[in-house]
Amino acid sequence: MTEAPAPREGLLHETRAGYGDTDQSGIVHHAVYLRWLEDARATWLREHGIDFRAMERDERAGFAVWKAEVRYHLPAFFDDRLHVELWVGELGRAKIRFDYRVWREETLLLEASVHLACIDLDRLRARGLPQSVRDALS
Amino acid sequence: MTEAPAPREGLLHETRAGYGDTDQSGIVHHAVYLRWLEDARATWLREHGIDFRAMERDERAGFAVWKAEVRYHLPAFFDDRLHVELWVGELGRAKIRFDYRVWREETLLLEASVHLACIDLDRLRARGLPQSVRDALS
Amino acid sequence: MTEAPAPREGLLHETRAGYGDTDQSGIVHHAVYLRWLEDARATWLREHGIDFRAMERDERAGFAVWKAEVRYHLPAFFDDRLHVELWVGELGRAKIRFDYRVWREETLLLEASVHLACIDLDRLRARGLPQSVRDALS
Amino acid sequence: MTEAPAPREGLLHETRAGYGDTDQSGIVHHAVYLRWLEDARATWLREHGIDFRAMERDERAGFAVWKAEVRYHLPAFFDDRLHVELWVGELGRAKIRFDYRVWREETLLLEASVHLACIDLDRLRARGLPQSVRDALS
Repeated sequence: MTEAPAPREGLLHETRAGYGDTDQSGIVHHAVYLRWLEDARATWLREHGIDFRAMERDERAGFAVWKAEVRYHLPAFFDDRLHVELWVGELGRAKIRFDYRVWREETLLLEASVHLACIDLDRLRARGLPQSVRDALS
Repeated sequence: MTEAPAPREGLLHETRAGYGDTDQSGIVHHAVYLRWLEDARATWLREHGIDFRAMERDERAGFAVWKAEVRYHLPAFFDDRLHVELWVGELGRAKIRFDYRVWREETLLLEASVHLACIDLDRLRARGLPQSVRDALS
Repeated sequence: MTEAPAPREGLLHETRAGYGDTDQSGIVHHAVYLRWLEDARATWLREHGIDFRAMERDERAGFAVWKAEVRYHLPAFFDDRLHVELWVGELGRAKIRFDYRVWREETLLLEASVHLACIDLDRLRARGLPQSVRDALS
Repeated sequence: MTEAPAPREGLLHETRAGYGDTDQSGIVHHAVYLRWLEDARATWLREHGIDFRAMERDERAGFAVWKAEVRYHLPAFFDDRLHVELWVGELGRAKIRFDYRVWREETLLLEASVHLACIDLDRLRARGLPQSVRDALS
């Protein structure tokens, strides 16, 4: 979980809250954000030249979420235009942690950390990060 | 789409509307029902002795929805206990249509038809229904 | 349901298939499209100058889906960039039907019609379309 | 987050993994669990005699998630029958923390903590827990 305020330097993935993302309390449902963080991760991979579909298909390497921490500061509403800020918080041999902030204009709505482990998709077992990911990160 | 009122003779799958199934209009979101119909289908397969996981893994046969028609009569609300009634409406060599009614007690909320085609999961192409499914249906 | 092929003249709403939009058959789950059609509808309202949030809050008028028909022609895959084409298929005093096509580049993936009824959100009962919607449509 | 192993003493809410709960890696998507934890919470409230719908409607009191921590130990698969174990981890004047474990038979799949704040639904602002909830907990 990020503690210190930081300038927006990472990737900014744009999304918009749909009607079906809300629940009857009138705000975006808390589970929806995990999907948005994931979409931001896909954008990050794409923009770093990593072909995740090929990685899964050819190398049989995927990512499994093994830990997620989310701090909900303020609600998002239907039709809000939002930005997901994303950066690599920690990088190991087989693990990677992405840190996130979700913004509506200048308002911070949410902070999160999602811890991923690289897995062999056929055996659902841990393995090292593919070289293509390492290259993109250095 | 079913037109005539019919007695409840098919399988009755029970479900309950969750908080996250609602949207800000205060009712269950219309896309959620497709998931419930799918859950009812899984229950139907299980109760007919069809091991769908084995079918996908060993025979590489799966189902693809190629058409869906839904009539929403009355809304469902958070925490409603509901029953999905399900029966085979039509059966072909490679296709199967399931018909549905969703009930809250004696109140009919929804009618639907979901048309499935049997597909080869490796090539995403049409194929005949597996013998195990045919046997269960006769 | 649209029958005749037509040029793309309506609004084109862009979306992208997320990882969580897929299921274990490796394609986008069929219920996800209803959410995308809804997002396209929100874009359409916004671009026609209709403030749907204000309409719900001030006029207490909302839309309820009373019928949906979907034809799935070809699957969408993770990370696909898609366009939802949308136009008003039919307009009544209290009802409106939107027709849709979902495209990946030049490939037609899906056709759908979603029938909406205007409802009074406090009583969940039918009412006429708000004047703001009528004006936007004429 | 729970650290010590504990006997299953809390409420056990049963659920089943649907096809649409999986993603293309072949396991249940990580965001789905937040929905299951929420469903377990609804069961807990119901079994403690708390009418959440009345609480929202009459007292205009609701719960907002302000923090969630999830540890994913092992994956769940389509059609798995699962149990969500749930207990109150901490209770404050306006806040309540629920702790969870998700089991498939004797196998622990997931541990989580979800921190809720009681809010005034009209003003989306913090307020004390309703007396009905306090009574149920003592």
